[in-house]
Amino acid sequence: MNHFFESKHLLLNSKDKFLPNILLNNVIFGYYEGKIKILLKKLMIYDKWMLPEGFIYKTESVEEAAYRALKENIGIDNILLTQFHVFGEINRLYSKVDKNILNQRYVSIGYYAFVNYSKVKMFCNEKEEIRWFDINKLPKLYGDHNKIINTAIFEICKYINHIPIGYELLPEKFTMSELRLIYEAFLGENLDRRNFQRKMLSMGFINKLNEKSEKRGIKPTILYSFKKDKYMKCLMQFLKL
Amino acid sequence: MNHFFESKHLLLNSKDKFLPNILLNNVIFGYYEGKIKILLKKLMIYDKWMLPEGFIYKTESVEEAAYRALKENIGIDNILLTQFHVFGEINRLYSKVDKNILNQRYVSIGYYAFVNYSKVKMFCNEKEEIRWFDINKLPKLYGDHNKIINTAIFEICKYINHIPIGYELLPEKFTMSELRLIYEAFLGENLDRRNFQRKMLSMGFINKLNEKSEKRGIKPTILYSFKKDKYMKCLMQFLKL
Repeated sequence: MNHFFESKHLLLNSKDKFLPNILLNNVIFGYYEGKIKILLKKLMIYDKWMLPEGFIYKTESVEEAAYRALKENIGIDNILLTQFHVFGEINRLYSKVDKNILNQRYVSIGYYAFVNYSKVKMFCNEKEEIRWFDINKLPKLYGDHNKIINTAIFEICKYINHIPIGYELLPEKFTMSELRLIYEAFLGENLDRRNFQRKMLSMGFINKLNEKSEKRGIKPTILYSFKKDKYMKCLMQFLKL
Repeated sequence: MNHFFESKHLLLNSKDKFLPNILLNNVIFGYYEGKIKILLKKLMIYDKWMLPEGFIYKTESVEEAAYRALKENIGIDNILLTQFHVFGEINRLYSKVDKNILNQRYVSIGYYAFVNYSKVKMFCNEKEEIRWFDINKLPKLYGDHNKIINTAIFEICKYINHIPIGYELLPEKFTMSELRLIYEAFLGENLDRRNFQRKMLSMGFINKLNEKSEKRGIKPTILYSFKKDKYMKCLMQFLKL
């Protein structure tokens, strides 16, 4: 059986177990070597990359499905997944070619998560590939997945002026430049170094440490850490989780 | 045929036209005589009030369905509907009794809207009732509809410190006390009169008019109006509509 028929067979066989017409897509952000990364997946039967997806078992809630899908895709479950928007256009997914394959309409619920890059395990088989991409160098994406990613970034930008992002992305001790790079990637603009530092410290979620980074070839720089408890409390209150 | 069988019959007959397992609920806010109101509906076959709902035709987008449902329920379509959250718990709707009637799981997409109270027409028939309720005196609600309303209010509170609400609720010319009453209803707390006025004016969305209200028995009070263009532009940017 070739990939095409095998996938179709699998879907048809399990269709009674899942809610029809609904799925979810996880936008997973990581940080590696000064770049924000997004996790994408490619099924061999398609020529385009896509966001990791999940179907919803009739026996689980939508949120449970989102966490299960995350665990199945990257082996992580102990993180914050935030639901941010529903994508429900009629022709959001299928081109003429795709229609021949699945011939079904899906409404997609978008979730985003920040994960520790080094803890991600890529679970995939010979029918799919999973890989990190630089947020500024994404490949051509399937359906409206570009819109899903842009909407996630937009939603994150709504609160980063109140509660910093970066806790899950950065190492425990980080420099102000590393934090600024993350902001710049999400906001899509360069930020003034001094203003940024002043603002971050005045928000009250970050400790200045009595330590400096000692990377070879770089001038020692002050290190910072998150006030984890305060940060998590405010973030969850803002997101109402 | 009694109501029970008639409703079931209608749903079964049209089920191939709608996406199964998904619906949407509109939280519709109005303002009347100093109180924030929410529009609720009661089907004769149930004993509890519920939010107006809509099913999604296979031939329309989720957003189109939300606007169509609004028009069908209250005859209004020229307003802003904002999608805010998906409610996907397994047992969010049905009690044992309900299970006997529809026996189906629905994932619900929540939308909210502010409408001009005086422009709302209540379309209903002998099988249902539709009515405004004071936000502080809601009746016992069906399923998780209390949670849907509270989540809508929470989402609105996220931006009212940046962009005022009230444009669709208040008359064209309004007093600062009327605007403050709306804030107090959403925030669930009393606000200092002077601080509130200073804050509202500094946000830059409101004009102080050279006119005073002249209600009999009340001291003449300064009137204000919204800077409509600026307000709508910022709001739509914030909500990314």
